[in-house]
Amino acid sequence: MTSHPFDTALVLTPDFDSVPDQFLGQTSPAWWNMVGPFGGITAAMALNAIMTHPARLGDPVALTVNYSNGLLPGAFKLVATPVRTNRSTQHWVLSLRQADADGVEIVALTGTAITALRRETWSASDLPCPDVPRPETLVRLAPPQSGLAWFSRYDMRSIVGPLPSQWDGGAASSDPQQASLTQLWIRDEPARALDFSSLVAMADGFFPRVWLRRALLVPAGTVSLTVYFHAGPEQLAETGTGFLLAQARGQGYCNGFFDQAGQLWNERGTLLATTHQLVYFKE
Amino acid sequence: MTSHPFDTALVLTPDFDSVPDQFLGQTSPAWWNMVGPFGGITAAMALNAIMTHPARLGDPVALTVNYSNGLLPGAFKLVATPVRTNRSTQHWVLSLRQADADGVEIVALTGTAITALRRETWSASDLPCPDVPRPETLVRLAPPQSGLAWFSRYDMRSIVGPLPSQWDGGAASSDPQQASLTQLWIRDEPARALDFSSLVAMADGFFPRVWLRRALLVPAGTVSLTVYFHAGPEQLAETGTGFLLAQARGQGYCNGFFDQAGQLWNERGTLLATTHQLVYFKE
Repeated sequence: MTSHPFDTALVLTPDFDSVPDQFLGQTSPAWWNMVGPFGGITAAMALNAIMTHPARLGDPVALTVNYSNGLLPGAFKLVATPVRTNRSTQHWVLSLRQADADGVEIVALTGTAITALRRETWSASDLPCPDVPRPETLVRLAPPQSGLAWFSRYDMRSIVGPLPSQWDGGAASSDPQQASLTQLWIRDEPARALDFSSLVAMADGFFPRVWLRRALLVPAGTVSLTVYFHAGPEQLAETGTGFLLAQARGQGYCNGFFDQAGQLWNERGTLLATTHQLVYFKE
Repeated sequence: MTSHPFDTALVLTPDFDSVPDQFLGQTSPAWWNMVGPFGGITAAMALNAIMTHPARLGDPVALTVNYSNGLLPGAFKLVATPVRTNRSTQHWVLSLRQADADGVEIVALTGTAITALRRETWSASDLPCPDVPRPETLVRLAPPQSGLAWFSRYDMRSIVGPLPSQWDGGAASSDPQQASLTQLWIRDEPARALDFSSLVAMADGFFPRVWLRRALLVPAGTVSLTVYFHAGPEQLAETGTGFLLAQARGQGYCNGFFDQAGQLWNERGTLLATTHQLVYFKE
């Protein structure tokens, strides 16, 4: 029996007899980034603990995860606790623990999430889907360097703001609206029907804005990621195995940290999620 | 001895002998909103627990709080735990507990934060400060209705996108860039030098975007608020008691929840913080 690499990475075993709300998991080499797993897969694992928790009420509406320590290859413990359940919303606290290089158990991820029973209301978007070339007309990006396993887990097609081809410190654009803008099509490779967890992973599918903004390959890593969900099961089903249009822009860059704002639409132009992250950088 | 209403609201008494990292506090009538305290003051209290914690490393770079239950008037317990301290960053978990109407202790707020020792790096902004009329040329907003105590704690001066004067369901604007845009000047009243906690409070100083977007006074309340800090002590000192230019726009509105993106600049045009929130609404 074969399984999609995304599903393999998300396998969690309930361990509630040891610790309430605790799941056991394993990092997945197929999703390795430079010095640890791709942050998107770690965030997706955290959400998946909630998705598989027997006490869950409704669908995710907000998720925040903070990366407090790079994950090492191997086992981890993930606790997802529903600390408050109201009539239609439920508040979750997340933590991922792992033994560090010295064998000491440390917190490698903190987080919170909200799930909710949604009711049908007036719905709209103030972020119209950009008018861009269709994915079929664009070529799939080749991995930028060997050894980035996670990059091969996606079919990504650049529209604007690709990874710089020259690290020469040349500014991308003098127009602040364009200077740190990336637009790309992204979908799982092989194709896989979108769910909340894979949407979270793709929300982290951007290289650091500072690389584009400065054309300098400086050390950078996400420290906090937030995803707001504007999709329910209906919008996920409408998306299916299609591409997502993913867009990100840098915002403020100040003394070691910058933030980006991102959006994800499906091929029909439905806004599925908005996302923000704070990124550490060194220059 | 008199104290500024903001400082009075933020008084926390360490209670570490009872519970590690626990502070005791009291809600403040001066900051009351319709059915509980102004969310911004609650977020500021949460950050203040970190700011006054003896183990704190560095300054805040990210804060997320989730409102899991409306606060009742009276006492609360606030726990701010530094769960992971690295060389230059520190990860915090926040929770606020309070007895509910039945006397049962419940979690009324969850959250996470990151503090960091910042190093001087290349810094910039891709969000240029909008060119707007100066605060001196605008009149202070009168409270929209009696009983909103928190509104009187601020000097707010509307630039664009004020609270609708007619709740007639008339669309604000057909331009998505303008439809849910609010720009206003805001500062503490009486004036008070900006610090990280007051910056957080002002990041929540917007009325719900859905009210502007729809010109309908529907029930709405913030469920999750994130603030990314692009300011250190130097930028705070530069701001002093001046106004902040606060801007917010709605993004996605889907089946009971919408999100907004916001920015805060000082009078010199320095970007101090970006902020996002997810808001429950009923229509």
